[in-house]
Amino acid sequence: MTNVTDFAADFAPGSVWLVGAGPGHAGLLTLQAHAAMQAADVIVYDALVSEDILALAPADTPREYAGKRGGKPSPKQADITLRLIQLAKQDMRVLRLKGGDPFVFGRGGEEALSLVQAGVPFRICPGITAGIGGLAFAGIPLTHRDTNHAITMITGHDATGNVTGVDWEAVAKGSPALILYMAIKHLGAIADKLMAAGRSADEPVALVTNASMPDMQVLETTLGRAAEDIRLHDVKPPAIVAIGEIVRLRAGLDWLGAAGGKTLEADPLGLGKGDSKQTG
Amino acid sequence: MTNVTDFAADFAPGSVWLVGAGPGHAGLLTLQAHAAMQAADVIVYDALVSEDILALAPADTPREYAGKRGGKPSPKQADITLRLIQLAKQDMRVLRLKGGDPFVFGRGGEEALSLVQAGVPFRICPGITAGIGGLAFAGIPLTHRDTNHAITMITGHDATGNVTGVDWEAVAKGSPALILYMAIKHLGAIADKLMAAGRSADEPVALVTNASMPDMQVLETTLGRAAEDIRLHDVKPPAIVAIGEIVRLRAGLDWLGAAGGKTLEADPLGLGKGDSKQTG
Repeated sequence: MTNVTDFAADFAPGSVWLVGAGPGHAGLLTLQAHAAMQAADVIVYDALVSEDILALAPADTPREYAGKRGGKPSPKQADITLRLIQLAKQDMRVLRLKGGDPFVFGRGGEEALSLVQAGVPFRICPGITAGIGGLAFAGIPLTHRDTNHAITMITGHDATGNVTGVDWEAVAKGSPALILYMAIKHLGAIADKLMAAGRSADEPVALVTNASMPDMQVLETTLGRAAEDIRLHDVKPPAIVAIGEIVRLRAGLDWLGAAGGKTLEADPLGLGKGDSKQTG
Repeated sequence: MTNVTDFAADFAPGSVWLVGAGPGHAGLLTLQAHAAMQAADVIVYDALVSEDILALAPADTPREYAGKRGGKPSPKQADITLRLIQLAKQDMRVLRLKGGDPFVFGRGGEEALSLVQAGVPFRICPGITAGIGGLAFAGIPLTHRDTNHAITMITGHDATGNVTGVDWEAVAKGSPALILYMAIKHLGAIADKLMAAGRSADEPVALVTNASMPDMQVLETTLGRAAEDIRLHDVKPPAIVAIGEIVRLRAGLDWLGAAGGKTLEADPLGLGKGDSKQTG
């Protein structure tokens, strides 16, 4: 059997590996990320990296926090990249551990370009993005041949904190299924734009908080009721929002619920393809 | 340190785990998938699962091939799901190992619903999808704050093998960046539709074959020239297609090329944000 620690054999001193940690569940870490955690001289981690994951590094590896937490001021992006450069210049193997995937709403490209400017070698180590792996824990597929051949992922706010300046009318018409990141704050406004462009108020929506973690919660609602349900149930970030018929498939694909006794439907879309049921 | 094999502790006899193997590089396998491979009684794998990954299972674990290969006839989806059910009914721990992620153009939902109908418990184990993790090896981010706040993933052919029946005009207007799966055959027709909807013939396109693997090849072209370049360079599947300004970022983010001596640009979009260069 291959020695799995080989995956960090070329993690050189003086370099930075930008590593995706996935949505939170430690089992979703990659073998490469795990190997890099064993080899790193220092780990600079984000708020969305779980304690379970940090526990996989050797106890004596220094960990530095870079992200929002509690009432403390949030380090600016420029401060984080300066720190990465500083550590690399000290000839350390610097592991920059980010929630999800570095290249999916993760600012990995920005951090990497700062490293290029400073002459610091780097590597991108992909992770499982919450919009895919987190939704899998909620039993929601991104694609299904009976519902959609396209999926659009959008961030719910842009760099200024406002609703993302995308062409919502085109998005509403172009993609039967939408996955929104960081969208809880603006979901009411986004839903209004989608409905104005012709999407139904009855369209299924799922709000998945702490996706993949033991305290994951899934709230099923509709485009028309989503904003009110966020207030009623006090839904807080981090959350992933799924919009579209894919959400209805959860009635058949919620394997985690089935393990807890929920009965799954073999034909959640009502297409007449299945007629029996399963209790997990 | 946590025992990483614990991630398959609840892989029960008589159940099927639908596991994503990622784009091909064995380091991109998850800890959970790796643990499941150690625990499985049988592995039923797809064409897109690499030899490097299969080598991570114990040598004496039976492996069954389910996919297209060489001149042999391809098993039908119904045959594959029947085989999964048959193996599970023999009280085996059945690992269904699929390329990429089971829920992203992976037919994982279909296979799972067949299991529900047969009363076989299952779990979805997410993997890194080639459209994200494969492109990371090519130095192409899915999102970057200076280029796009939305990304659309589309399959290049539908179940009948024709060009996917999506609203290409809306897609063209809604998402500055597009990732196409299984699109080599129809890319000329797709590019025509995108250009007819207003996308520029000069828009950057990257064709990434065997993404993340040692024989990965990246061909940079444009929307107007893509189909001709596919013919000229005899580009063959499996390939991921990236369309949009994100492709230009490769000049700064191609970490794999930099490791081989390529000079990276700190300001690949020409925004005046960087002025120095790095040789990796």
